[in-house]
Amino acid sequence: MSTDWVSAPTARTTVRRKADRGRYERDIVHAVLDEGLVAHVGFTSDFGVAVLPMVYARLADQLYLHGAVGNHMLRALDHADVCVTVTLVDGLVLSRSAFHHSMNYRSVVVYGRATLVADEDEKNRVLRAVVDHMVDGRSQQCRPPTAEELRATRVLRIPLQEASAKVRTGPPIEDASDVALPYFGGVVPLSLVRGAPVADGL
Amino acid sequence: MSTDWVSAPTARTTVRRKADRGRYERDIVHAVLDEGLVAHVGFTSDFGVAVLPMVYARLADQLYLHGAVGNHMLRALDHADVCVTVTLVDGLVLSRSAFHHSMNYRSVVVYGRATLVADEDEKNRVLRAVVDHMVDGRSQQCRPPTAEELRATRVLRIPLQEASAKVRTGPPIEDASDVALPYFGGVVPLSLVRGAPVADGL
Repeated sequence: MSTDWVSAPTARTTVRRKADRGRYERDIVHAVLDEGLVAHVGFTSDFGVAVLPMVYARLADQLYLHGAVGNHMLRALDHADVCVTVTLVDGLVLSRSAFHHSMNYRSVVVYGRATLVADEDEKNRVLRAVVDHMVDGRSQQCRPPTAEELRATRVLRIPLQEASAKVRTGPPIEDASDVALPYFGGVVPLSLVRGAPVADGL
Repeated sequence: MSTDWVSAPTARTTVRRKADRGRYERDIVHAVLDEGLVAHVGFTSDFGVAVLPMVYARLADQLYLHGAVGNHMLRALDHADVCVTVTLVDGLVLSRSAFHHSMNYRSVVVYGRATLVADEDEKNRVLRAVVDHMVDGRSQQCRPPTAEELRATRVLRIPLQEASAKVRTGPPIEDASDVALPYFGGVVPLSLVRGAPVADGL
């Protein structure tokens, strides 16, 4: 693995609110990024702060975004400071009080400077990782990019140097005085389920 | 309904990349916000752009965030310009070429100025909407907030004046020369499924 990982939280990756939910281990950050499918990428646009959903991939301690050469946002992101957040929702936490309702989740927040990847080998590795991130092994089960398609694709790299996770698990908090109330208390599990593939019929 | 809705896209809500996926109808924006569970809230923090996941609720043409009074971020967001993005993933779009892989999704991006809600009735309505957003009717099946809990909670309002949706549906794009390749082409449907509730046993 590369040595980009910084295990100690920095000022901006330290989880302040509900600090006991903060997790800084590389394995946890990697696991959340690998399970997630969409990242929310925050950056400063001509119009102020913008947050757009993007697919992504992780390789070692690098996070990668990609898009078409015609995508103005990707060009604007070269050498820009970004915040990339991936969130997995694991459950609705239903307390007997409205006040203690919550969610079980795992999220990762990455701060860093995005830079364009020029190296063709690295671009190829990233684009394979993007399709393998959707379906494991898929890069071996589709036609690889042509030289022209590669030129038409921009790839951005963000090092996982400043990244942290936040995780909530378990049942709701209940005030002792609420336990006897005639309401359900517990968790409704949530999971993103893949259905049977629907062929395009071509 | 309130008259906050602005149906015509503004410069920053106009979908530029793949413009045919842009949708500006109120019903579509509302439907995505009502189905989503987590919003990614972008704002300018002391450390630059930050994107944090938050639960939320919609009432008429207002989007609401909430949190504890001790949550510094919420205080910082009062009168701040934010970008709030909600994304639903509907399918993995598997083309026979790596290049045309995509996702089916519905996303909403809201730009606006957040302001603290001081009115107690509005706060109560919002907090009911937050639990009803998790489970329909839940606000009638739990203990409502006490005056103290209400004081301990901050609520922020963002008008849905500048909001747009972006939607991709359907099968992958296939280049004619790829159709005969021996690879699967189609969509793997994705859905966020609620499991059987797990009681906390109290």
